Amino acid sequence: MKRLELLKELIFKNDSKILFWVFDGVGGLPHPDSGKTELETAHTPNLDAFARSAACGGLEAYGAGIAPGSGPGHLSIFGYPLDDFDLPRGVLEVLGAEKAYLKGEEVHDVALTAQDLAMRGNFATLEQRGDQLVISDRRANNITSDESQRVCRYLSEHLAIEGYEIFVFPGEQHRFAVLIRGENLAGGLTDADPQKSGLPPKFVEAERPEARHSAEIVNSLVRQASEILKGEQKANAVLLRGIGSAPKIPTLGELYGLRCAAIATYPMYKGIARLLGMDILHVPSLSHEDEVKVLEENFDKYDFFYLHIKETDSYAHKRDFDGKVGVLESCDPLFARATALDFDAVVLTGDHCTPAILGDHSWHPIPTALWGKQVLGGGSAAYSERECIRGTLGIRPSRDILALALAEAGRFNKYGA
Amino acid sequence: MKRLELLKELIFKNDSKILFWVFDGVGGLPHPDSGKTELETAHTPNLDAFARSAACGGLEAYGAGIAPGSGPGHLSIFGYPLDDFDLPRGVLEVLGAEKAYLKGEEVHDVALTAQDLAMRGNFATLEQRGDQLVISDRRANNITSDESQRVCRYLSEHLAIEGYEIFVFPGEQHRFAVLIRGENLAGGLTDADPQKSGLPPKFVEAERPEARHSAEIVNSLVRQASEILKGEQKANAVLLRGIGSAPKIPTLGELYGLRCAAIATYPMYKGIARLLGMDILHVPSLSHEDEVKVLEENFDKYDFFYLHIKETDSYAHKRDFDGKVGVLESCDPLFARATALDFDAVVLTGDHCTPAILGDHSWHPIPTALWGKQVLGGGSAAYSERECIRGTLGIRPSRDILALALAEAGRFNKYGA
Repeated sequence: MKRLELLKELIFKNDSKILFWVFDGVGGLPHPDSGKTELETAHTPNLDAFARSAACGGLEAYGAGIAPGSGPGHLSIFGYPLDDFDLPRGVLEVLGAEKAYLKGEEVHDVALTAQDLAMRGNFATLEQRGDQLVISDRRANNITSDESQRVCRYLSEHLAIEGYEIFVFPGEQHRFAVLIRGENLAGGLTDADPQKSGLPPKFVEAERPEARHSAEIVNSLVRQASEILKGEQKANAVLLRGIGSAPKIPTLGELYGLRCAAIATYPMYKGIARLLGMDILHVPSLSHEDEVKVLEENFDKYDFFYLHIKETDSYAHKRDFDGKVGVLESCDPLFARATALDFDAVVLTGDHCTPAILGDHSWHPIPTALWGKQVLGGGSAAYSERECIRGTLGIRPSRDILALALAEAGRFNKYGA
Repeated sequence: MKRLELLKELIFKNDSKILFWVFDGVGGLPHPDSGKTELETAHTPNLDAFARSAACGGLEAYGAGIAPGSGPGHLSIFGYPLDDFDLPRGVLEVLGAEKAYLKGEEVHDVALTAQDLAMRGNFATLEQRGDQLVISDRRANNITSDESQRVCRYLSEHLAIEGYEIFVFPGEQHRFAVLIRGENLAGGLTDADPQKSGLPPKFVEAERPEARHSAEIVNSLVRQASEILKGEQKANAVLLRGIGSAPKIPTLGELYGLRCAAIATYPMYKGIARLLGMDILHVPSLSHEDEVKVLEENFDKYDFFYLHIKETDSYAHKRDFDGKVGVLESCDPLFARATALDFDAVVLTGDHCTPAILGDHSWHPIPTALWGKQVLGGGSAAYSERECIRGTLGIRPSRDILALALAEAGRFNKYGA
């Protein structure tokens, strides 16, 4: 935190403009047939020319060896030290959810406030053993995502706690998330999950006095859920974990005096951006060209733009190497269009790596290129994992990149005389 | 601090000798005509040969994006973590001042002790509005440096607080600094500066009980100054900020058992060196050759030498690219002479970068070369920003370089069995 406080003190306000172009899961690993990564395979003349004019390097969200989720990945490229701004898992799930049910109705883009209590859930199967009800399966006997979604809707229709709104977010298979909204909620609760089968369901406990009221609310939800779901074959109980509120994160506006806009098409990224105080600009479709159009139309209104491309990550999760290559290639001319705007600093990066050959996030340094008028470039012939590491930025924590961009944009005073 | 304590514990005393050759503001950026930085332009066969024999890298004083002043820049190359050893701005101003007035007399090289209270000042203009005296201009209506110097002298002549010496240090335009010396002074004061015009002058307040006496002394100075300066048209009030004492910094002698000497010609660098417990060796002129002569003459008497070359920074501040190149070239044979002495470790570095095209300090990694008998060299063909980053040290915090030099000099025991 000390460094963030100092950065805040050193801020110099000007009219400069900064772009963060974030390819989700951008970095990859070599395809066994070609020995080339997705970036090395893709024909991306504009990204490559940009890297040659830029200072390049590799970013690590949480140091060596740790593959971050999108939450920590984004927090760190936006300059937040993860040890100080730890988002409860429940908050990350809610931020990442596509939709929710509220009183049985589908709702979208639920904005998370610091007063809401979020939690992850598993549907589980209960069974009578002797005179005790115990959990026989912590994952509701391989319930399908469709079934699980139906249960979420049904549950949301019947849950009722006076004075509170309860959003239920369906997830994959047995997974879901819950958000409770109302007065007097606070994190600091143990998990309502016995962590193994053969044990009776568990209730939360308050770890601090301020959380006592929340404990009652959550436990009442657990009890109601068992009642509501008792006719279900598989999903007749809920286990709740990672319960907490979104931390009071100082926004990018508060820290650096930036007017920030997010251009993203998926809910999680909008949710994170909202948490950090960005305005979420409406993108009329899922097309990347529309994202760039929105950037162009709003260029005059903001200091800082976060433009997020989801599909690099989506294809990589499906182990679709060529699909990921295709997204990079189709975005290449769009990147050129975006950087033709009069930016003072441009960052081309990702929130983490998702190598298509792994089908999941990885811990490798995120290939990153920073352009600005005072940049000391050189060393990198193209935008790729291996070329970026030869550049002048070296391998660094992801949280460095925002400060470097602010420096390029002339937004810091000197530290000390 | 934890690391410093461990380093201190691990120290092994021997007869090795270490040189820190510090080119102030050494790093630069490419000239738009040539695409080459100052270091890349300068013909410096000796510096380049040294870099080829050395382990090279880039240093950052306070992490990514932050351009440090000379104070933080030097503290960090001498191994001090800046979050633990933050010098109040007043202290940095006093360390950096060329001269002071004491009772109207000019004095030089004022040594700062941990008992002194230092502060930055602005001359301001007061004006009667209705029945109130308010500040009409916080910068004394563009007072010139010459006028301001006259006012400093006059002020120092008439200020009188029983039992205290008051040094007034003239600065540029409306800026000055004050040092109060005497018993029972302590930092922990708010600023005596309303921060905007149209408000009445402000007085300091003690933020902790130990500072109450200091608050009285400083406020009496503020009141006296208004009285003394009431005949002035422009500078008829003082605003004081960044008030504090030099922190009790453990010296390089205390930490590492080093007998240290500083060879520098400008007051700020002597001031910092004195704070860190170095002996200040007298240099008979401003010539760099004299600095090297003093090094040669005193080689037997010390373990650690800090040799500071100011002019690389001075020319860069004047945006004189060729002037900076010239200093590097003229120092090149002198560096060869210095390193012909029987040193065990030599560090060639700077306190920060000052690219001539910017005319000010920058945040870029400081090109650095470390030589010693156990050095792992390679990768760097010359002493320059881009060649150093290709070297074996990588990009690191500036505070790492002292430990690396001590290691080269065989001055650490192994940590643990």
